[in-house]
Amino acid sequence: MERAGRTQSSARRRRSEATGAIPQLPWRQLRNPYAPTEPLSGDQIAAIHNASLRVLEEIGVNVLLPEAREIYRQAGADLDPNSTRVRFDRGLIESSVAKAPPRFTLHARNPARNLIFGENYANFATVAGAPNVSDLDGGRHSGTLADMGNFIRLAHSLNIIHLIACYPVEPIDIEPNLRHLKATQLVAALTDKAFSGYALGRRRILDVIEMARIVRGIPDGQLDREPSLYTVVNSNSPLQLDQPMLWGIIEMACRNQVVVLTPFTLAGAMAPITLAGALAQQNAEALAGIALAQIVRPGAPVIYGGFTSNVDMRSGAPAFGTPEAAKAAQIGGQLARRYRLPYRSSNVNAANAPDVQAAYESQMSIWGALTGHCNLLVHAAGWLEGGLCASFEKFIIDAEMLQMMQAYFEPLVVDDATLGLAAMREVGPGGHFFGAQHTLERYETAFYAPLLSDWRSFQAWSTDGSIDTTRRANRIYRKLLQDYQPPPLDPAVAEELDAFVRRRTEEGGAPMD
Amino acid sequence: MERAGRTQSSARRRRSEATGAIPQLPWRQLRNPYAPTEPLSGDQIAAIHNASLRVLEEIGVNVLLPEAREIYRQAGADLDPNSTRVRFDRGLIESSVAKAPPRFTLHARNPARNLIFGENYANFATVAGAPNVSDLDGGRHSGTLADMGNFIRLAHSLNIIHLIACYPVEPIDIEPNLRHLKATQLVAALTDKAFSGYALGRRRILDVIEMARIVRGIPDGQLDREPSLYTVVNSNSPLQLDQPMLWGIIEMACRNQVVVLTPFTLAGAMAPITLAGALAQQNAEALAGIALAQIVRPGAPVIYGGFTSNVDMRSGAPAFGTPEAAKAAQIGGQLARRYRLPYRSSNVNAANAPDVQAAYESQMSIWGALTGHCNLLVHAAGWLEGGLCASFEKFIIDAEMLQMMQAYFEPLVVDDATLGLAAMREVGPGGHFFGAQHTLERYETAFYAPLLSDWRSFQAWSTDGSIDTTRRANRIYRKLLQDYQPPPLDPAVAEELDAFVRRRTEEGGAPMD
Repeated sequence: MERAGRTQSSARRRRSEATGAIPQLPWRQLRNPYAPTEPLSGDQIAAIHNASLRVLEEIGVNVLLPEAREIYRQAGADLDPNSTRVRFDRGLIESSVAKAPPRFTLHARNPARNLIFGENYANFATVAGAPNVSDLDGGRHSGTLADMGNFIRLAHSLNIIHLIACYPVEPIDIEPNLRHLKATQLVAALTDKAFSGYALGRRRILDVIEMARIVRGIPDGQLDREPSLYTVVNSNSPLQLDQPMLWGIIEMACRNQVVVLTPFTLAGAMAPITLAGALAQQNAEALAGIALAQIVRPGAPVIYGGFTSNVDMRSGAPAFGTPEAAKAAQIGGQLARRYRLPYRSSNVNAANAPDVQAAYESQMSIWGALTGHCNLLVHAAGWLEGGLCASFEKFIIDAEMLQMMQAYFEPLVVDDATLGLAAMREVGPGGHFFGAQHTLERYETAFYAPLLSDWRSFQAWSTDGSIDTTRRANRIYRKLLQDYQPPPLDPAVAEELDAFVRRRTEEGGAPMD
Repeated sequence: MERAGRTQSSARRRRSEATGAIPQLPWRQLRNPYAPTEPLSGDQIAAIHNASLRVLEEIGVNVLLPEAREIYRQAGADLDPNSTRVRFDRGLIESSVAKAPPRFTLHARNPARNLIFGENYANFATVAGAPNVSDLDGGRHSGTLADMGNFIRLAHSLNIIHLIACYPVEPIDIEPNLRHLKATQLVAALTDKAFSGYALGRRRILDVIEMARIVRGIPDGQLDREPSLYTVVNSNSPLQLDQPMLWGIIEMACRNQVVVLTPFTLAGAMAPITLAGALAQQNAEALAGIALAQIVRPGAPVIYGGFTSNVDMRSGAPAFGTPEAAKAAQIGGQLARRYRLPYRSSNVNAANAPDVQAAYESQMSIWGALTGHCNLLVHAAGWLEGGLCASFEKFIIDAEMLQMMQAYFEPLVVDDATLGLAAMREVGPGGHFFGAQHTLERYETAFYAPLLSDWRSFQAWSTDGSIDTTRRANRIYRKLLQDYQPPPLDPAVAEELDAFVRRRTEEGGAPMD
């Protein structure tokens, strides 16, 4: 019987809709005040830890870059003279990983956008790397620089998006050897939030590190002290690190920039079909990469990435936002905390449209990641189709779901004023609280006000055209693009960036290593 | 860059679709293996507890039934001679509540469907009380007995639905004085799962208790020992208990049947706008009702219900699945555990269609309730529009989301076999696990297989008509109705039930008290 009639939306709401600003929560560094959910006991975590060290000792990792093998060798690792295989003593792994900082700040060009990673801080980054883009009006097509720019504009406009994962969609219309230059320049023009570079070879990551320095307008020495760029390094699971990724680890660590080591361990395909085994392999791969960063530069900022999910064993298709992935996300957090490392997880799903499946699989991902205390949530907004498409409507749907977590993170105040005995006395049994002083003093900010949800009655909603949530998300993303204002950029910085991109373009950009 | 191509669904999957059985998880009593999320400290919970006892001592509750006031008075409560107000000494409340059992079994006519409440057991009940019903084909209309029957058929067919909340939709076509008779008879015919009765007056609840006895085919004395029916009692917040609800508490407790005391405390409307205040009021109302059940019959099974949500302060509309409600659900669990009582929460949302909003608001409700360790999740499947509509598609969407939680509750096995070192050794760096022995031994049952989610590639999905998730839910619910088989019912029981309903119908049924 728990139900209640709903009134027409008030004049207040209609007015807000008329003036047109999209309501949203303020920019804030989020902290997760709840204890993490820990599916495994201390003994079970120790068993995964030990299994992963045995993997590194007994099986080892294929390290495809000779320079990286040499770095490992000098630190004491065991090289196979006839292959790319490297085996690691557990002491080397444990002592190297222990040098990584438990907490660091990622600097943005606007200091107000600096972000702390570690402890219970939670930071949300855009989708990255989708080859396709879609919206309800234009359907699905290959990504372009124009599409990418629009995602950056949305990310800049929404306070709940804390940083950019480059690039939300691949600008396929830009030739690959120049893509990192043009795309990074566009990011710098459109937002003052922190951003990332792809680990796609030595020349590219060096270019983007230099562009991060120019964007911040700081000298080399200051960049070396202040992490201002991050990169995601995916191992080629199982147990392999390729040349572009290894250059990413080496050059980023060398400059004290952030490496997010994220093994791509899909259980049943690139990792054992058992979650315990997939997590042991994830841990082995993550520790091997993190150790390399610490050998290159002790104390370089790194993030332990967990991406363990499973495949659909009926079809071989990867699945995301599954119950297994939620558990793996929480256990990944336990492992990262064991090493006192910041932790990265993802908001992912396997849906082919920004529909109900996309929403519930994303919620499973978000709750798994945040109850697991992730510090960096990548693909937090816009991801669809297991990463093959970035959706404008999904970006808004995710922004709403993330804002709800921001509100959920607000600690409750329990004191005489909030316990409200005076209000209950004033209203009395059978009354209502709408007009109580206690209510009037608080009603404007008492509750989360949604970005996307429609709480009107069925009658009001259907009279207004029965616009479903995905269609409303379409309207909101268009409105945000319409209202978008670029942040100020120092003309000297813009000019230096432009000169750099011009010079590097004339040099032919960066071929793939 | 984390993405991967997906193959066409396999012959295996196509075959399963052709033979047509809807895949689902097996029936199971669920246990939540994770530690509950506890937003408040012990001191804060004590503050809410103390505030609620002060409310009961200083403000009191309007008790609209003279017989109930007399029961309270004889137990030591303080009656106001000039009104319906009753005030309670904290000793009376605490000593009464302490008599309630921390755990009990609710009996179904099929003993395999018996359910334990308490500890970390989690049970999922259908939506209840919606006046309207909808599906994609027929749109939205007032509920009928035929619609209600179809929801019972779905609830019977889906293993993830553990019990019935009567009635998923109101059978408006049955006159009110006979409705409880016809509807309960239909429930008994269509399912062997446990069910409930509405606390809508003395005569009605007595009728349904008798029907629960007949359905189980047991004598009166055995019914008194074996809880076989439950009822939800909503207080008329703030601080009021009406006559029909009070009769429900008294008659159900008298027969040792289950009372689920659920204050309807919408913060800002029927409760203080502050969550701490709304929860203090929820606690006061719940304890007052639970104390009555324990005074009537010490040890009678009760469940502490939490339904605290908030209203949209812009329009006065109730909101569900909000960040505030998720916190309130978790804190409700903390309060219930303080009194060693089983706990009830809900899967609710305020969406007007079975769309993305319905999915993410429901997920917030489900995660709030289950991280709060609720033992009874009411409205677990089918609820829409803040309870004003029961949706057939939403029923299937919820079943999928609940099944995902069943799979999430499966504890991980960590041992030598699952850690998979031998498999990693066999596959080696750069290989894949599809053909490994370790995989072949486990692939059929390794992962959750969805009921509703479509994990095919975009190409396969769009070639097949781009059927979105809500439309797929429509197909599944129709297929389940088509395949439905009623459970066997002893003809003697059916005849006794029929005779009872015939006699009570001839007597005119039950008028509202």
